[in-house]
Amino acid sequence: MSKTDAPLGEFGRIRQLFRPLAAGFAGALNLSDDAALINCPAGFELVVTTDAMVAGVHFFVDDTPEDVAAKLLRVNLSDLAAMGAQPLAYTLITSVPTTIDDAWMTRFAASLALEQAEFGIMLAGGDSVATPGPASFAVTAFGFVPIGQAVRRSGGQVGDRVFVTGTIGDAALALKIAFGQIAMRAGSDALLARLRRPTPRLGLGAGVRGLVSAMADVSDGLVADLGHIAEASGVCAVVACDRVPLSGAARAVLDESPELLATVLTGGDDYELVFTAPAHQAVALQELAAAAAVAITDIGHLTAPPEGRQGGAVTVLDPQGQPLPLTSRGWEHF
Amino acid sequence: MSKTDAPLGEFGRIRQLFRPLAAGFAGALNLSDDAALINCPAGFELVVTTDAMVAGVHFFVDDTPEDVAAKLLRVNLSDLAAMGAQPLAYTLITSVPTTIDDAWMTRFAASLALEQAEFGIMLAGGDSVATPGPASFAVTAFGFVPIGQAVRRSGGQVGDRVFVTGTIGDAALALKIAFGQIAMRAGSDALLARLRRPTPRLGLGAGVRGLVSAMADVSDGLVADLGHIAEASGVCAVVACDRVPLSGAARAVLDESPELLATVLTGGDDYELVFTAPAHQAVALQELAAAAAVAITDIGHLTAPPEGRQGGAVTVLDPQGQPLPLTSRGWEHF
Repeated sequence: MSKTDAPLGEFGRIRQLFRPLAAGFAGALNLSDDAALINCPAGFELVVTTDAMVAGVHFFVDDTPEDVAAKLLRVNLSDLAAMGAQPLAYTLITSVPTTIDDAWMTRFAASLALEQAEFGIMLAGGDSVATPGPASFAVTAFGFVPIGQAVRRSGGQVGDRVFVTGTIGDAALALKIAFGQIAMRAGSDALLARLRRPTPRLGLGAGVRGLVSAMADVSDGLVADLGHIAEASGVCAVVACDRVPLSGAARAVLDESPELLATVLTGGDDYELVFTAPAHQAVALQELAAAAAVAITDIGHLTAPPEGRQGGAVTVLDPQGQPLPLTSRGWEHF
Repeated sequence: MSKTDAPLGEFGRIRQLFRPLAAGFAGALNLSDDAALINCPAGFELVVTTDAMVAGVHFFVDDTPEDVAAKLLRVNLSDLAAMGAQPLAYTLITSVPTTIDDAWMTRFAASLALEQAEFGIMLAGGDSVATPGPASFAVTAFGFVPIGQAVRRSGGQVGDRVFVTGTIGDAALALKIAFGQIAMRAGSDALLARLRRPTPRLGLGAGVRGLVSAMADVSDGLVADLGHIAEASGVCAVVACDRVPLSGAARAVLDESPELLATVLTGGDDYELVFTAPAHQAVALQELAAAAAVAITDIGHLTAPPEGRQGGAVTVLDPQGQPLPLTSRGWEHF
């Protein structure tokens, strides 16, 4: 093995692969100090989120390093979007076994570089550790919002309309395709792409600040995440199942296997935004959505909890207006 | 199994074990939103560091949950101390296999609560994931310093004195005891305690801002971390081996096994501070150290790099003034 082919080692990987990712962020101190410095612009506050991904749990062991890096950043960016924040910087922990070689890490870092450029975020610091277990990666992402203007989950009001961005259920169906529970067909690639590389709705998320009353991203599933908003807001939610926006590929799957509707409504990983707003904001919201080239769809509204009950329940109505027997995990079996 | 004995699950652990740790930090949003809000006081900037610990790599699988939690926070706090920062908040990622039960996690969280109270830091957010691998934990810690006053590694000047806090080598000797490479003896417990629960030098670290020229914490080892300062500062360092402060327990080990001097000088995990300062600051530094009840010891000085060479080299002189054949990893073998 020639000298240039020698393994990079922990410090070599930091120097050669990760330092360039921090070159544009002065507070990263060139990744050569004990910590990073983050200055929040005057009048803004920092929004901080952290998400980890473990091989074999949150991604497939044979997923490409490009996809792993992209998803890692995007799921964190989606949390920033759900608060209405603009991205600023992130820290990264890589925890990898010896089977993850320099070539893999080089591709991983190259993908991070592309993602950074696309979403306007830079590496500020991190830690690299060895593990005898599966590879795992964690990001802590920093964004900023004008002080007091972060969009919370808790602001939903009775009567507010419920909106979602994009289409729902693609990632959950893709997961079934990846597990071989649904056969590959035309459109499967589009679904799989949505699972591998979700699109954080940063522009729209920041744009709707001040118009919406509550917001979350759809990571656990539409019913669960809308339920989080309802619970935090002390209200209930009603969704019309036939208003939930579906991609053509998802529609084709459902036409053939209608029982997968529960998967669409309760599956996770879409990383769309679900938000609530007074009905009179609908026009302004649609204009923002058009400008951001992101579809938004009114799928229902918020209601008062039944007498003597706390909020949090999400009811999905079928086309006949009857409640579907759904739990946040899928169909309820009696 | 009665209902109250049912496993907490991911959301139950967040609600019951971790939410109380965030109760005092408004920006944590009760751990029930997509992200946390962190406001930096006016005139200050945030200092951000992140460190992960993997079972079987950074701690022993049978370490108590109390010790794991304490060390996890303390190693991150030590990085804040090394920048001269005061602690503010932290985010936590737990990545645990099913063998880590609720009882273990309950003790882990209780230990975090004690550490939070001791060091003045609060939980702001986090993520909990499952893993088929070993347990691992990651903290991203936030501190603050007056803008522009963070202590960097790069400020060392030729002629500056080199100081360390506390005693050096205890943790590295403890690791050898834990591995059975050194027999247990009187004093071993004191060494092991230093490995399990390092003391972040927060008060002194913040106190010396403005007096010192460069600082780092001793995590990789005295020679390596002083080397980081020297490299970042473009200078070299000379240390007198018989001035390096040793605990009584470490001294006893060295009296019996002098060859372990290399372990003391190059072993990691002490989490003391090593810093450089102009000689005229020595009196002020000693007064601060006395007030903080932390010993500081002058162990050497910074020198210009040899003609045509870059900085970074650390030379340790024996009592006769001869250089010891040390590398940052121990003795150099010719």
